[in-house]
Amino acid sequence: MDRDAPVGVFDSGVGGLTVAREIMRQIPEERIVYFGDTARLPYGSKSKETVVRFSRQIIRFLRTKQVKAIVIACNTASAYALETVQAESDIPLIGVVNAGARTAIASTHNGRIGIIGTEGTVGSGIYKEVMRRLRPDIEVFEKSCPLFVPLVEEGLLHDSVTDEIASRYLSVLKGKYVDTLVLGCTHYPLLRSTLRRIMGEDVVLVNPAYETAIELRELLESQGIKRNPQSLFTGEKYQFYVSDLAEKFTSFASSILPGEVKKTERINIEDY
Amino acid sequence: MDRDAPVGVFDSGVGGLTVAREIMRQIPEERIVYFGDTARLPYGSKSKETVVRFSRQIIRFLRTKQVKAIVIACNTASAYALETVQAESDIPLIGVVNAGARTAIASTHNGRIGIIGTEGTVGSGIYKEVMRRLRPDIEVFEKSCPLFVPLVEEGLLHDSVTDEIASRYLSVLKGKYVDTLVLGCTHYPLLRSTLRRIMGEDVVLVNPAYETAIELRELLESQGIKRNPQSLFTGEKYQFYVSDLAEKFTSFASSILPGEVKKTERINIEDY
Repeated sequence: MDRDAPVGVFDSGVGGLTVAREIMRQIPEERIVYFGDTARLPYGSKSKETVVRFSRQIIRFLRTKQVKAIVIACNTASAYALETVQAESDIPLIGVVNAGARTAIASTHNGRIGIIGTEGTVGSGIYKEVMRRLRPDIEVFEKSCPLFVPLVEEGLLHDSVTDEIASRYLSVLKGKYVDTLVLGCTHYPLLRSTLRRIMGEDVVLVNPAYETAIELRELLESQGIKRNPQSLFTGEKYQFYVSDLAEKFTSFASSILPGEVKKTERINIEDY
Repeated sequence: MDRDAPVGVFDSGVGGLTVAREIMRQIPEERIVYFGDTARLPYGSKSKETVVRFSRQIIRFLRTKQVKAIVIACNTASAYALETVQAESDIPLIGVVNAGARTAIASTHNGRIGIIGTEGTVGSGIYKEVMRRLRPDIEVFEKSCPLFVPLVEEGLLHDSVTDEIASRYLSVLKGKYVDTLVLGCTHYPLLRSTLRRIMGEDVVLVNPAYETAIELRELLESQGIKRNPQSLFTGEKYQFYVSDLAEKFTSFASSILPGEVKKTERINIEDY
């Protein structure tokens, strides 16, 4: 395995850039190949079978870029596909769910944890399953929030409508007295201030992106494939690919990543 | 051309069933093969290039079912792809946009027409272009309403949040004193009562599904390929195919179509 090879990161769209950003911050020596499936997003409302098929195509594409490890930066794809594609792969794959689950368990005092995510992530029950495996006495309460992604994409981050919808979605979790809430979709950290206000100051909000970058660093170290910061490489350090709307992606990515994104290449993911 | 062959109808998902329903009502002798691209929906926020590629795949699939004509029952696909795929096809293709545009022009008294639709449909400017071709002095005002589809899919058809969002979207069109409003997305007729209340009783709401069925009947008659109601056929009169979540589609289709839908078959549209 080439230690200087890049890490592959993928998501259904732009949300996984929050994970890529954490990797850039925490492991700045690593190179990244990012893929966003903008032609077929969102994944959250689609079936397990379809999300597994899409994930396999993306992994085949990332392998053509000689990645040494892959991060599934999409909660739905992590929930539905990680176990299946891990079993098929000879390079390490990690998802955002494990990291988020571990952090939530480390944070809770009263053993009552809330999960919010897409219909796919919540319907899969994956967070509950992973948490129960780590700590069987934990109480997990899940709620899907299908309008959060469209509200974020409409730019209504601080808006009375978003407040109203969030109040409705979260009321059931507040009623369960959770002391920890996992933001189980990569778009949700953008609603952090609204979620914070509704849940109150005493509830810990867990963003799996942060812990995923830590898990990746530990994985690269334990497998001896962490990149040597001094070694040379050709081409861009960070490469971006999407299945649609490359320019729109470039401008969004530039707005949330630390450095400017010069270009994004569009590919036909269905050919892989 | 086999007069007894079915008509193909497609959409990005379930919305086009409102068009299929009108065809069933107005031309009950015709057989229908419906395809909903539920694995890749929505189309409204995707690029022209991608929507054209998806439309070509679907047309290739429908041709394997020996359809004699195809109705693009999706405003975005009609806006982006109809002209291109018509030029490539030896069977007749029609879309929902022409029918909607013609009805709006016939209905307006003050020559001021509003269009609401997805980002793709509105961004394409197709309604304005078609209307101006029919009547150059018409004034057309367009507004994309990206939250309407998710609100409908969340079931918030009669809800204060939907009222608030609709008020914001429509205020610009009210300010233009339109007397006719085209519901340029197949989901929007489900918000008819909200739209009616906000626009007022004097504004005509145009649902292109209705006029599209009339256009199809005229087309089949003029080309001499209208089905003989007495002729025999094998298999189901109405066939349904999707690219994901067949059972969910079946139950939704049963709830809005006049007869029960027995089954929906899932296919891999990317193979076409």
